[in-house]
Amino acid sequence: MKRPGLKDVAEKAGVSIATVSYVINNTPSQSLSPETIKRVNDAIKELGYIPNQAARTLANNKSNLLGVLIPQTESGKEFMFSNPFYGDFMSAAEYTARKSGYHILISGADSGQTYAEVARTRGLDGVIVVGMNDDEECRQLKALNIPVVLVDSYCEASGFHSICVDDKQGGYMATKYLLEKGLRKIAYVTGQINDKGVNFLRCQGYEKALEEFGLSPEKSLLLAGEVSFEHGCKMGEYLAGLTERPDGVFVSADILAVGLCVGLREKGVRVPEDISIIGFDDSLLSRACDPPLTTIHQDVADKGTEAVKLLINEDRTPKNKVFPLTLVERGSVRDNHSFD
Amino acid sequence: MKRPGLKDVAEKAGVSIATVSYVINNTPSQSLSPETIKRVNDAIKELGYIPNQAARTLANNKSNLLGVLIPQTESGKEFMFSNPFYGDFMSAAEYTARKSGYHILISGADSGQTYAEVARTRGLDGVIVVGMNDDEECRQLKALNIPVVLVDSYCEASGFHSICVDDKQGGYMATKYLLEKGLRKIAYVTGQINDKGVNFLRCQGYEKALEEFGLSPEKSLLLAGEVSFEHGCKMGEYLAGLTERPDGVFVSADILAVGLCVGLREKGVRVPEDISIIGFDDSLLSRACDPPLTTIHQDVADKGTEAVKLLINEDRTPKNKVFPLTLVERGSVRDNHSFD
Repeated sequence: MKRPGLKDVAEKAGVSIATVSYVINNTPSQSLSPETIKRVNDAIKELGYIPNQAARTLANNKSNLLGVLIPQTESGKEFMFSNPFYGDFMSAAEYTARKSGYHILISGADSGQTYAEVARTRGLDGVIVVGMNDDEECRQLKALNIPVVLVDSYCEASGFHSICVDDKQGGYMATKYLLEKGLRKIAYVTGQINDKGVNFLRCQGYEKALEEFGLSPEKSLLLAGEVSFEHGCKMGEYLAGLTERPDGVFVSADILAVGLCVGLREKGVRVPEDISIIGFDDSLLSRACDPPLTTIHQDVADKGTEAVKLLINEDRTPKNKVFPLTLVERGSVRDNHSFD
Repeated sequence: MKRPGLKDVAEKAGVSIATVSYVINNTPSQSLSPETIKRVNDAIKELGYIPNQAARTLANNKSNLLGVLIPQTESGKEFMFSNPFYGDFMSAAEYTARKSGYHILISGADSGQTYAEVARTRGLDGVIVVGMNDDEECRQLKALNIPVVLVDSYCEASGFHSICVDDKQGGYMATKYLLEKGLRKIAYVTGQINDKGVNFLRCQGYEKALEEFGLSPEKSLLLAGEVSFEHGCKMGEYLAGLTERPDGVFVSADILAVGLCVGLREKGVRVPEDISIIGFDDSLLSRACDPPLTTIHQDVADKGTEAVKLLINEDRTPKNKVFPLTLVERGSVRDNHSFD
C-alpha cells in the first residue's frame, strides 16, 4: 500500500490535480464550485490523505522547518550531544518550535555539505547556528537571505541575530574569584582556542583577572584541547602528575571540569583541598559532581527558547541578546585565606 | 532578495517550469534537446539555484528525512534531552544519517499532532520511535506504510523493526547483584510504570530476583515517579528521612540514580556505607558521580546507529535486535558480607 497522494485524491474526486491543490491551499484566485470543493474534501477524508508539507512548501515558499546546526569541535566525533549544554539547548528549542507549529531539523557539520546548502535544499525558514566562528560559512548563509541566529558564534557577517553571554566577563569573574580566594597559580583548561570564539574570549577574561592581580599568564598553564568528559579526565591525570601543580583551575565548560575532577580523584588528588576548580555553564553535571562544582551559571534553555522565537517572529531587524552570567558557589574551590 | 526558484530558472532559460523540473530530476521519459538541457543548467548556475528538497520529495516521493520521535514522560516538560540517554542516542543517529545523506527531524510529543501526522506531513522516509508504549499511535504509524523502528518501545503492532535490551533481565541482574552482596531491603526507584514498557519489565526482573532470595516485593519500596535528576534528588531526601531505610536501591536510569545520590548526600546519608545504589545505562553521569556508580551498561550509541541503518537499508523484513547488557562494578554498592 502506498500513502495516498494528490493524484489519488484527484482520481477519486474526478477532478484535476491542480484543482485538488487549489482546494488544499485555499487559493483565492480560483473560483471553484462548492460541489467540487465538497467532492475533493470527501475524497481527502475517505483516503485519509494528509496534505504533504513538501507540496505546501512549494506552494507557499514556507517549510515551517527550522535548522539547528551544531558544529562538532573535533571533525568526525559523533557525540556532540554528550555535552549537556546541547541537550538543554535543543530541548528548549524543539519545545518552543513545536508549540508554534514548527519542526526542528538538526545537523552536525562535516557532511560534505555547507550549512548554507543544507538550509537551501531543505527550504529552511530559518537557521540557528551554535558555536561557529567560520566567516566563509557565515557569508554563504548570509547570501541565502533567510533569518539566521548565531548562538555563541562569532563571525564577521552582519545582519544576523545574535545570542550570547559576555564570555570575556565570564572568564574574568571565574578567575578573579579564584584569585580572591588566595589562589595564585591558576590554569585555564578549555577546548580549541581560535582567534575568536567563546574559548578565546574567556581566555581574555582569564588573562585580564591575572593581570589585575599582578600575575602574568603562563603558557604552561594554558591547556587547550577538546571539550569532552574524556579529555577532562586526561587533563586531570596530567595535572595530578605535575611536580608543580596549579592550585586553581578555571575550566571553560562543566563537562570538561567534571572530567577533570574525576581524573584528579583517580590519581589521589583532592578537590578542593589540593586543587580548586571552577567550571562554566552550571549544567546538572555540576550538581552531580562531588564536591559539587562551583561554576559560572548561564541559562542555556533560555538561549534555545529565544533563538527559536527570533526566527518564528520573522523580525528581520538584527537583535543582539546578551544573557546574564552569575557565579554559583558550591564546594570545589577552597578559601586559601583560611589556611594562612 | 528572494531565493531563486524553479520559476526563475525557467524564465531565465526561456523554457517551461516542467522542463526545468525534467532536467533537474533527470526524468528519463522526456526527450529534451542537449541545447535545452544546457540552457537550463546555465540558468541554474547563473542564478545559484539549488534544487529544493521539497520539489525533489514531490517528484521522487523520497525526502531523505528521518524522524526521531521522543515522547516526553511528563506532558509539557521541556527537557527531554536532559537525560544523557537521549543525547547519546541522537548524536549517533544524527551522525549515521548525515554520513548517508539523510537529515534528522526531531520531535517530541504533545503538539496536538500525532506522530503519524508529523511523519505524513513531512514525508518522512522512516520513523524512529523511542520509548513509546501507545498502541493507538503504533496503529496509526502502521497505516502509513513507512519503515518504523521501535527503540525501547513496547506496543502490539507487528511489522516494525525493534531495538531493545532485555529489560527484565537487566532488572534481574541489578537486583540479584545487590542481594548477593548481602543486602536485603531493596527498593526500586523508577519512572512511571505502565502495563508494559521498560520500567515495568525491569520491575519484573527486580521482583524475580527478590523471589529467588525468598523475599516478597514490598509496595512501600516501589517508588515510581519521573525519570529526572530533580526527581532523583527528591527521592534521595525521601529515603534519607525514613526510619526504616532500605539498604539497597535499584534505580532504572543513571540520571535518576545520580540525583538520588545527591539527595542522600545532602541529608548526610552516605553511599555506599549507609545505602547501596545500582543504576542503569552507564551514561557518563555514572562516572562523574562520587562514588562512581555501579550500573547496568548498555550501548546507547549503538542503538542510535543501528536504528538509522535499519531505515536507510530500506529492509522491510522486520528485524528485532536485542542489545547486550553488562554489569559495571564501581563504588556505589557495599559488600555487606565484609561487615558480618
